[in-house]
Amino acid sequence: IKEAKRGALQQLLDELHPYDFAQIYRGLPEKHHHKFLTFLTPGQIADLIQELEYDVQLEILQQLGIERSSKVMDLMDNDDLADLLNELSVDKIKEFLDVMKKEDSQNIQSLMSYPAETAGGLMTNQFVWIHADQTVRQAVDKLKAYASFSENIYYLYVINHEKKLVGVVSYRDLLIAEIDDKIEDLMFNRVVAVHVDADQEEVARTIERYDFIAVPVVNDDNVLLGIITVDDALDVVIREANEDIEKLSASGKDIDFNTKALTASFRRLPWLILLLFIGLVSGSIISGFEETLDQVVALIFFMPMIAGMTGNTGTQSLAVVVRGIISHHIDRRTVISLVFRELRVGLIIGLTCGLLIMLIAFVWQDNLILGLTVGISLLITLIVGTLAGTVIPLLLYRLGVDPAVASGPLITTINDIFSLMIYFGIATMFLSRLTGL
Amino acid sequence: IKEAKRGALQQLLDELHPYDFAQIYRGLPEKHHHKFLTFLTPGQIADLIQELEYDVQLEILQQLGIERSSKVMDLMDNDDLADLLNELSVDKIKEFLDVMKKEDSQNIQSLMSYPAETAGGLMTNQFVWIHADQTVRQAVDKLKAYASFSENIYYLYVINHEKKLVGVVSYRDLLIAEIDDKIEDLMFNRVVAVHVDADQEEVARTIERYDFIAVPVVNDDNVLLGIITVDDALDVVIREANEDIEKLSASGKDIDFNTKALTASFRRLPWLILLLFIGLVSGSIISGFEETLDQVVALIFFMPMIAGMTGNTGTQSLAVVVRGIISHHIDRRTVISLVFRELRVGLIIGLTCGLLIMLIAFVWQDNLILGLTVGISLLITLIVGTLAGTVIPLLLYRLGVDPAVASGPLITTINDIFSLMIYFGIATMFLSRLTGL
Repeated sequence: IKEAKRGALQQLLDELHPYDFAQIYRGLPEKHHHKFLTFLTPGQIADLIQELEYDVQLEILQQLGIERSSKVMDLMDNDDLADLLNELSVDKIKEFLDVMKKEDSQNIQSLMSYPAETAGGLMTNQFVWIHADQTVRQAVDKLKAYASFSENIYYLYVINHEKKLVGVVSYRDLLIAEIDDKIEDLMFNRVVAVHVDADQEEVARTIERYDFIAVPVVNDDNVLLGIITVDDALDVVIREANEDIEKLSASGKDIDFNTKALTASFRRLPWLILLLFIGLVSGSIISGFEETLDQVVALIFFMPMIAGMTGNTGTQSLAVVVRGIISHHIDRRTVISLVFRELRVGLIIGLTCGLLIMLIAFVWQDNLILGLTVGISLLITLIVGTLAGTVIPLLLYRLGVDPAVASGPLITTINDIFSLMIYFGIATMFLSRLTGL
Repeated sequence: IKEAKRGALQQLLDELHPYDFAQIYRGLPEKHHHKFLTFLTPGQIADLIQELEYDVQLEILQQLGIERSSKVMDLMDNDDLADLLNELSVDKIKEFLDVMKKEDSQNIQSLMSYPAETAGGLMTNQFVWIHADQTVRQAVDKLKAYASFSENIYYLYVINHEKKLVGVVSYRDLLIAEIDDKIEDLMFNRVVAVHVDADQEEVARTIERYDFIAVPVVNDDNVLLGIITVDDALDVVIREANEDIEKLSASGKDIDFNTKALTASFRRLPWLILLLFIGLVSGSIISGFEETLDQVVALIFFMPMIAGMTGNTGTQSLAVVVRGIISHHIDRRTVISLVFRELRVGLIIGLTCGLLIMLIAFVWQDNLILGLTVGISLLITLIVGTLAGTVIPLLLYRLGVDPAVASGPLITTINDIFSLMIYFGIATMFLSRLTGL
């Protein structure tokens, strides 16, 4: 009976997509994981493992043991395998590489030598190439021979005898061509390729702009080293968007609905403690103006509004810059025109809000000088806030500092300090008139 | 001479990708646009137009006139054309549809009937289908016949005689199969499809999870209506990420480096003016506690820190929720477990920061009761802030309100109000002791 059930399960699993596979594995209680794995063929485990997170992957390898793991690894896509191995200790890596097929092991080692966030780190070197003087028939034969080995891609890349990339031909073109046509007559020879050192964002952008299914990766000599498929580009785009949002909110890396409370807290706390100290700077600024405050308590009523508004405009500018840095080439001209644009925006916003608050303050507190003080302060703080939200992230980017430092809360907190200094500074200047009325 | 130059230009343009084409068009001074268009074949204009923004597309159609436009439209991808036509007035749409080929016009009209942000709005109905009992040879012949018509996809969808989707076969499978094999023996019959009413995010998620190049779109009866390709999914992902960032920063829709200052200001101002008024609420709360403040001025020093920290924790929680809503099914259980997680996070963060600030306040102001007041206030405001950042966007989402309303600055400003009420409330309770020392 157990054999029959096993057969039925096998048949079911055969028809599932790797993603559904992974969903089933995740859904199983932990104690059944080991048993589930014994039901699977190495090929199925290879499919499964590529859909899971690193820690689950490592857990599975542990359970399989070196022998079976190496069989699974032989069947994994090279790019995923290289990423996985990079998570292991040096000893472990060596152990696994030793039991793998020699050719695979060499392939993997060359992939592992590229930094993770570059084209080299994203690419797979399991692809099928062909020479320009071969025929469609030869191409199809080669595809058949490598059917189980090559990743499911949809182009065949054409290289010359120095392994340089000279063209590309789609499976569709092969299908509709005559069997004896020469590849060079079918191929498209203005191939768009990315350099092996290119940043992963640039790779994703290239694939997105040209609506590619895959893009070839070359070195300085235009030698074809690998390919990157659109599904990897899609993952990069999602990851980058999440990183931007982490930047803007300082919410900490990789926190999702399933992260444990303690883990989530520890990822957010470093930022919060830093911001706490910066927040105290605002406090000490106020304490420096204690005398002014003592005389005109009404000044405090407008303090949260001014600080808040300055923070808000700063965040708005920051968001525009953070998104823009991804999709634009940042040169001197771009930066200057952007800063001037934001300066004008700050001026327009400042004038509008400044006039509005001047009227409100005047009517509410029945004090024209107070209205003027608040209005002028808001005008200036909004201009400064907008500029700070623009210039600080650009500056950090220029200096090569991780722009994650310019997070939304940091800009907000810095703008708090600016706004309080400006507000109380102006109030102190007007003080004699303020108390005089 | 001019003819020769035209020939050379034609040859160059023939070898360019549509994206590069569009870059050249954008780079040309406006006065040369018309001339440039006269150089192009309708097919080239169709390629070009699909890479441009709506307003530029409309400008080009204007310049071409009805006659030539309709030729271009016949050559455009149906999904892009439907989107473009949806931008026009009803009269204009009719005018264009009348001069198009009847079959195309009907195709377009059926596409235009689906809402833009659903699978129906994203799909194209230019695809090639085949019956299960046909052979590879018949499939290839059909592909050849429709080579210029079908979008560049990489699967062939298999339907039965009621037009229901029964399988899928990749071009690669066709290539490596024998020419007389039956499609039903090659095809994969557990096809993953999306419903025509599915939200575009769900479509993108399906394509991303299964690493698809394209996904078929079906109606309630599993009848194949169209296909959506991975490049459209990639665009959706990028658009959605930008929208999330707009939400978190209230930076206004579609502001990029090239937006004019006045336009950018007008898109940001509505939010800022709303936030200005909410900020005044904070002010009026403080004015309610004027007596407390008069007696212990030192309370003001900690005000920016407490308000700022509450805003920051709120933003962090908001970011986690906004990102999570995209990739999770939001049911009662998810919501409850998330709210409790964030409650625990608020508690941990609150205890840590509360103790820290208590010590600092005690040492700085040499006043234990003040330290206690500030510490306890921060503990409570951080818990409230974290919960507000979690519950408010979830509530809006549940109520079907556009979650864009729960922007980062709004959460920050609301948390400002909460934090001031709590802080001054607690301070007033401790007042006799605060002044007593």
